[in-house]
Formats: sequence, C-alpha cells, structure tokens
Amino acid sequence: MAIPCPQHPFSSNPTIEKTPTILSHSPPRLSQDDLKKIAAYKAVEFVQSGMVLGLGTGSTATHAIARIADLLNQGHLSNIIGIPTSKQTEEQAIRLGIPLSDLDHHPILDLAIDGADEVDPHLNLVKGRGGSLLREKMIEGACKEFIVIVDESKLVDSLGGSGLAMPVEVVPFCWKYTADRLQALFERSGCVAKLRKSADGSKPFVTDNSNYIVDLYFQKGLGDLNAAGDSISKLAGVVEHGMFIGMATSCIVAGENGVTMKHR
Amino acid sequence: MAIPCPQHPFSSNPTIEKTPTILSHSPPRLSQDDLKKIAAYKAVEFVQSGMVLGLGTGSTATHAIARIADLLNQGHLSNIIGIPTSKQTEEQAIRLGIPLSDLDHHPILDLAIDGADEVDPHLNLVKGRGGSLLREKMIEGACKEFIVIVDESKLVDSLGGSGLAMPVEVVPFCWKYTADRLQALFERSGCVAKLRKSADGSKPFVTDNSNYIVDLYFQKGLGDLNAAGDSISKLAGVVEHGMFIGMATSCIVAGENGVTMKHR
Repeated sequence: MAIPCPQHPFSSNPTIEKTPTILSHSPPRLSQDDLKKIAAYKAVEFVQSGMVLGLGTGSTATHAIARIADLLNQGHLSNIIGIPTSKQTEEQAIRLGIPLSDLDHHPILDLAIDGADEVDPHLNLVKGRGGSLLREKMIEGACKEFIVIVDESKLVDSLGGSGLAMPVEVVPFCWKYTADRLQALFERSGCVAKLRKSADGSKPFVTDNSNYIVDLYFQKGLGDLNAAGDSISKLAGVVEHGMFIGMATSCIVAGENGVTMKHR
Repeated sequence: MAIPCPQHPFSSNPTIEKTPTILSHSPPRLSQDDLKKIAAYKAVEFVQSGMVLGLGTGSTATHAIARIADLLNQGHLSNIIGIPTSKQTEEQAIRLGIPLSDLDHHPILDLAIDGADEVDPHLNLVKGRGGSLLREKMIEGACKEFIVIVDESKLVDSLGGSGLAMPVEVVPFCWKYTADRLQALFERSGCVAKLRKSADGSKPFVTDNSNYIVDLYFQKGLGDLNAAGDSISKLAGVVEHGMFIGMATSCIVAGENGVTMKHR
C-alpha cells in the first residue's frame, strides 16, 4: 500500500520521490496540515520494532499514529506497544489496531511523539491547548526520548509570549478562586485567566480527568520558567500546568523551506 | 440551653464551673473525644459575630461546628458565614442551620478552625487522613487566622516521623505509577506508598474531588519540609499533599493536664 504523503521537496522521508520537474516551477504551497504530516512522518522514522511508544494527542500527533499503524499493517514494524495520552488517542489507536497498554504496566517508555502549542529555542514547550496536558506530561515524562513535532508556526522566542493560551488543569471545586489566584500570581506579566468552555460555549470544558482548564494569557514572557511552573504547581486547586520544561529531547519542525531537526 | 462540655478542671472555658470537690479526688479520666471537644470549644471562643469562617473536617472539627451552631441558636453569635472544607462538613452545617458560602464568593476568610493528624513544634501539620486535604488546604490557605485544634496525641517532633500516614491526593489515571514515583522520591526516608481503600476495603477511597489518596508511610523524618512538599507537588499525577507548612497561626492542644495554646 502506498503511503500518502505531501510532496515536499525538502522532506527526507525516503518514501517520497523527488521530482526535479516540480522544483523547476514554483512548488505547490503546503498547507499547515501538510507541514504537520511531514513532521509526523519524519518522527516515525525513529520508531523501531519492539518499542513502547507514547502516543500524543492533537492534530499533529494523529498523523504520527496513523503512520505507525500503516507501518504495522505493512509489516515494516512489529511488537509495538502504544501508551495513549488521551481517550481520543486511545480511540484512534484501537480503531487502527495499535496494541495498547498503560503507565502502570509500562512505567518506562522508549519514545514518545507528540505535537506542541509553543516551542522555545531550548525545546521547552507549552502543551495542552487540546486539553490533554496531564496525561501527556505523565507519559512523556516517562520516556527515554521525546520527539516533538510541529509546523514552524509553533516556534516562539519565549513561552507565554505568543499571546496564546498557557493552559492549567484545575479541580472544578472553586475554580474561579483558583483562576483569580493564578492571574494574581502573574500580575506582572499582564496575565488574564479564563475558564475554557466547551465547543458550543455553554459549559466548562472537562478534561479526561474530569477537571477544568484555566487558560492563562500573558502580555509579556514568563521569565524563569522553572520558578513560574513551581509557583503554579504549589497552588492548592491546581492539578497540572501546560509548561513542559526540559522534557523534549528532540524537535522536528516542518516549514515551507523544509524539515529541520533539533536536539536538546 | 446549657452547653454540654466535659468537666475538665484546667479548661479555661468560662462556661465550665470548677468544682473543688472533684479536684480533691482523682479527676475522671478524659477520653480522647473529651479532649478533642475541649480544644474545639476553646477555639470557638475566638469566633466573633460577622466573621467568615472556614469549617474544618473530621472528629475534632465536628465539635467546633456543633458549638458554633449552638452559639448561633442561642443568639451569642450572629452573621456568621461558614465555608465548609468537605461535603461531610457541609451536610453537618446545613443540618445545624449554619449559613454557608464558598471561596468563589468569599476569597478571604477571617478564621478557620480545623483538626490535624500531626502537629510539629513549628505548627506545621499533616492533614488529610480524613480525606479532605485539598479543600482544607484551599480554604485554610485563604484565612487570616487558622487555629488548629488537637488532643495531645497529635503532637510530633517532626512530620512524617510518627509512622502514620501522610496522605497525597492523586488523579485516578495510572495511580499506581504515581504511587511508585512517590515512594521512589522518598526512598531515603524508607517510604512505603499505599493506595487508601474504601471502608470495606473493596475499592479505592474516593475524595470529594473524585480523586484517590496514596498514603505515604515513612521510617524516618522528611527533613526539609518545603523541599519535600515541592517535590511532591511537581509530580504530574499529584493533585495535593497533606503537609500544611506555615499555614496554622495558632494551635490549641487539649491534654490530661489541661489546655495550652501556642502561636506561630
């Protein structure tokens, strides 16, 4: 079975034929989803038979999971055990026939592949805009290698400075009080805390762990990320925050000018 | 209505008549519950009309709540707003007619009164053997004054050194993995981590926040409590730990030799 893959001239995916005739013209502009797929396929080149794999969540990770399933079905991979980072990923993996387990049975993973919402130059991440930050952090923290896959729009100079949300999972009990405390904690960074709502906006978004998400929006960077993370973790009412500091071992970035890979 | 109170010769509760005839004989030995009640009643002397009050959880706090309700019913107190630290306390307070609110509406409390499982010489506490540590920590962390009430059996030289449980609230997802990590974190203190079970032992104990409790048992003291607490809080999968460090402002201890009060 042929593996569908966008024809990106700089992709190092060996299954892609490079056609000089295309290069002599303006190459077709790649969509953001094409770039996500290119990064995902590149990461799956690092998967080997027999590995215990952390399976990420979100629009980029879903391409990696589909690719792993294809390679299993084609016999190019075998004896893979997947550890899903969300119920959504678990459902996709079951549908595609990837054998699954969990952290209780496999506390050490060989490799995880997952997307991110922000990546800074030191490979620190913001994750969780998809709502799965807690399980992702537990599982990706248990991996020997953690490859982050992103399109180039996710690269930032410093976490929190993009103006987009930094998610914090909180217990539903008095969430407003917790949101106010989070906002006060980062008053100097111009922080605004907002409860994440369900898709139709009628009620709070609920995580796989039955908690809520408070999204923090910053006007300025957070400064010392470890200090910021610790001060969030110490707040009673907080379950986990979306900063993944020092966890990613590599990052694959797909952009209009090709694929790059960076190691920490 | 007479307020029932154990006749402890050293109690400073002004409602207790001291009867020298009893003192000339061996005084009746007070039960642990009598001592808890003495400490609770003493603490309620600090409650004033118009206060927003944190209402603790457990066998000692329940005496304080009953006493506050009595004083409200007798007209000695008025305009009290209670913030309950558990569903169990909420039910008791509603039954006794104490007006209630929550942290979202009253983010600053005047006073909280609650029991503890361990109290060290610096008024650091272990709490949560009753399972309500998260809500207790949120509410008691929002108080101007926090009076801890205990019988003398709860006094320890150092937290964690009593051989009794130090509870940690964890998300149910892969709780075993989290328990193993907690145990590994305190390997040097001879830590053993055990999932708390329901009363009949058939299933996990579930907190008011739908989480589990992992009880940590130590053979040695924990050393630097702030460092220990921070390392627990940073673990993904942990919701909150049962060490209340630097939170209590006063402690009332009831013992066979009377009532003592200590301020931080």
